[in-house]
Amino acid sequence: MHIIPQIDPVSEAAEAAQLAFRSFADSTPGERARLLRKLSAAIGDHRSTLVSVANRETHIDTARLNGEVDRTRFQLQAFADVVVAGGYLDAVIDPPVSGPPPAGHPDLRRVLTPLGPVGVFSASNFPFAFSVLGGDTASALAAGCPVLVKAHEGHPRLSALTFELAADVLPPGVLSLVTGREAGQALVRDPRMKAVGFTGSTAGGRALFDLAVSRPDPIPFYGELGSVNPVVVTPAALEARGEDIVRAFVASYALGAGQLCTKPGLLFLPAGHDLEDSLRAAVQEVAPAEMLGPWIREGYLAAIRGLASAPGVRTVVAPSPDEQIAPSLFATTAEALRTQPAEECFGPAALVVEYASVEDLRATLRTLRPSLAAAIHAETGDEVAQAVHADLDAGRLVWNGWPTGVAVTAAMHHGGAWPATTAPLHTSVGANAINRWLRPVAYQDTPDSLLPQPLRRDNPWGIPRRVNGRWTRDPA
Amino acid sequence: MHIIPQIDPVSEAAEAAQLAFRSFADSTPGERARLLRKLSAAIGDHRSTLVSVANRETHIDTARLNGEVDRTRFQLQAFADVVVAGGYLDAVIDPPVSGPPPAGHPDLRRVLTPLGPVGVFSASNFPFAFSVLGGDTASALAAGCPVLVKAHEGHPRLSALTFELAADVLPPGVLSLVTGREAGQALVRDPRMKAVGFTGSTAGGRALFDLAVSRPDPIPFYGELGSVNPVVVTPAALEARGEDIVRAFVASYALGAGQLCTKPGLLFLPAGHDLEDSLRAAVQEVAPAEMLGPWIREGYLAAIRGLASAPGVRTVVAPSPDEQIAPSLFATTAEALRTQPAEECFGPAALVVEYASVEDLRATLRTLRPSLAAAIHAETGDEVAQAVHADLDAGRLVWNGWPTGVAVTAAMHHGGAWPATTAPLHTSVGANAINRWLRPVAYQDTPDSLLPQPLRRDNPWGIPRRVNGRWTRDPA
Repeated sequence: MHIIPQIDPVSEAAEAAQLAFRSFADSTPGERARLLRKLSAAIGDHRSTLVSVANRETHIDTARLNGEVDRTRFQLQAFADVVVAGGYLDAVIDPPVSGPPPAGHPDLRRVLTPLGPVGVFSASNFPFAFSVLGGDTASALAAGCPVLVKAHEGHPRLSALTFELAADVLPPGVLSLVTGREAGQALVRDPRMKAVGFTGSTAGGRALFDLAVSRPDPIPFYGELGSVNPVVVTPAALEARGEDIVRAFVASYALGAGQLCTKPGLLFLPAGHDLEDSLRAAVQEVAPAEMLGPWIREGYLAAIRGLASAPGVRTVVAPSPDEQIAPSLFATTAEALRTQPAEECFGPAALVVEYASVEDLRATLRTLRPSLAAAIHAETGDEVAQAVHADLDAGRLVWNGWPTGVAVTAAMHHGGAWPATTAPLHTSVGANAINRWLRPVAYQDTPDSLLPQPLRRDNPWGIPRRVNGRWTRDPA
Repeated sequence: MHIIPQIDPVSEAAEAAQLAFRSFADSTPGERARLLRKLSAAIGDHRSTLVSVANRETHIDTARLNGEVDRTRFQLQAFADVVVAGGYLDAVIDPPVSGPPPAGHPDLRRVLTPLGPVGVFSASNFPFAFSVLGGDTASALAAGCPVLVKAHEGHPRLSALTFELAADVLPPGVLSLVTGREAGQALVRDPRMKAVGFTGSTAGGRALFDLAVSRPDPIPFYGELGSVNPVVVTPAALEARGEDIVRAFVASYALGAGQLCTKPGLLFLPAGHDLEDSLRAAVQEVAPAEMLGPWIREGYLAAIRGLASAPGVRTVVAPSPDEQIAPSLFATTAEALRTQPAEECFGPAALVVEYASVEDLRATLRTLRPSLAAAIHAETGDEVAQAVHADLDAGRLVWNGWPTGVAVTAAMHHGGAWPATTAPLHTSVGANAINRWLRPVAYQDTPDSLLPQPLRRDNPWGIPRRVNGRWTRDPA
């Protein structure tokens, strides 16, 4: 009898990540920053090939893909800066205080340390910025965690190409690529994985979250899921610049064929507005576009069929039956929306919601589930804005702007309560995204020789540390 | 037919907490600090009554209970200081940068905001410090979250008394007390609860964790569970001060009748040590003590019966069959321990583990599951310490000390990976415990009138904020 050895790519990759972990975690900030900058350079060097492959696989136009390459490179470089600056380690030192407890205590030093190998699920709609070398991977590598990426089926060649570029830069085992639904589930279950990041649908994310938390050893699962992202227009803003607002609204919700997690799905307008013709005209001006893939197209068409036939909903611009999808628009009243919760519709459709009064508006806003982002268009000193602002439940609140376009900065928060995410304390964009991959460890009375570098008395890395409550780079 | 209205205490308390939430969350740091200090004063004013009730209900001696009252008051006051200092809000401001993305961006400001009403499960073994007004409640109130406390069955009168004192201080709905196992489950399931803190057994914690993550809207569950807390003695330390170490070990594991989550459950000694007589003598000197309750006594006796009959384990000091429990001690080899993972045994028992070589020690340490704390006893420049330190997987690593005694400071970390906790990124002791109850919100281009106070341009609370990456209290 011959026993044919079964090669399990997830298990193999997890083993390699495990083997790579200790030395990668112990690498200096300078070493990790160099790797991140090299990854950014590699993407830059192969930009035209990558963009062309991405365009063929995702149908996203090359201008947007080039912008995404810029953003992806910017993220990798930003995390290199974060690592070198060292504040992310949140090093805290409380020198000993003599006397009995509770006031007296030994020397205590705390620092953040990488969790271990982690999994990252690529998104379909950001083939660079949330894919193989996207923000999740960049932040995990910056933290010192080896990464197993689950490639998205929507752009397999681009994933393989990006991975090959990265494999030339990174030490063995630090980054692996696996493919297929089963591999994704195996990744979440693998005992060597210590956390998972995911960007995608609420249903898919929930299924994987359920796997992560039902492990014998549950692990953190950072799912960035669906979101309706409401936008409120006050009567004063409507009067001052209604035409401009609705045109910008259509541009925002149709951007990228509506396949963005920050797409404004709901526009609250005062009842009696006279902008329906302007809305219709603006929608009809948008060129049809091919969606990311047939499975997304099918899901989108089913979702808008449901929307169009929902009680109280009327069609403003009907969906196109063509292969290329033109945006569609629907309308309802705030009162009608209260009877059935709004769901994300992934694609170029939106719902105008007409409110009869501020009370009507607030009552409906309070029934909405939390979003990644929300926006309000209002005038200076606008009393309606003052009244409703606190009713917007979102990770990011935008004033006189649009939720699409997520800046990569320290103050960004791209997150929110369920169903926007599975982890309301965390962000998947911006400097704080690194926090997802780190856990604290405290050292009590430990001599320098056994302390990690960030906690040693002479502060060899020169990082900022909170000593007795005060930030300093001095020895302590 | 008469319909008898059913009063559901959890639902009623959750509704009251929900109603209290907005105004409590919006209270100023000064207001919340005053409430926390008043709670501390109330406990101090009624210390003798509280300690006497606690002593009757828990059998913990009054000296330790008085120490716990001190600690509980210290925690409440420490969180008052944390709230006033304002750094916990992690306010970040990135003023606008002109130009196209990714470098250009709008004005972005981020701050932490309370999650909403939260649940806290009291522990049996700290009737003050991890009970009605313990660290979980103090940190949640400091964050601005109303709290529903599930009282522990082990000290019902003390819980009610403490709650009454608190109810005189706090606004209505900000703190509620519920009792009973079913109420605990209802609390975790209640849609108004936005997070739960728990201190207790791995089995009980896991069951509640499973409830929290299987809600239609899963919520964070911070379970501080079981832990074996290994202690390693190097050959050099054994030679220099073996007698002192084993005496201190017995005192640490028998403290509080071994009913502490940081009890050192495993003592790794070099094989061939001649300390067994000293160990036996030290154990036999410890006075028997009544355990927290009959259910803990039963669980403990079952656990040590299992330990005593495990393969490769021999009894050094046999368990006492009396009502009052004297400590017991067992011994095994590192090799034998590798074949069956060590489990927490809640009570005054410990296991001496004899290692034949550094390799033997390291191989066994690597099979241990993560702990809340671990310790190493070693000499200066000790090569064995250097070799094994990284094999200790715990939230806190202690040098030449004992894991019992958890200081309440900013640098403390009382946590760890599963099964030490359900949330490896968080601590239940120290200033960072407040982070569990807060989520970030970002504001984009928002005018001062709609910004929360910590983000307003003139910094009305005078808190430290990170502006363009630099900590400052200046306007921005």
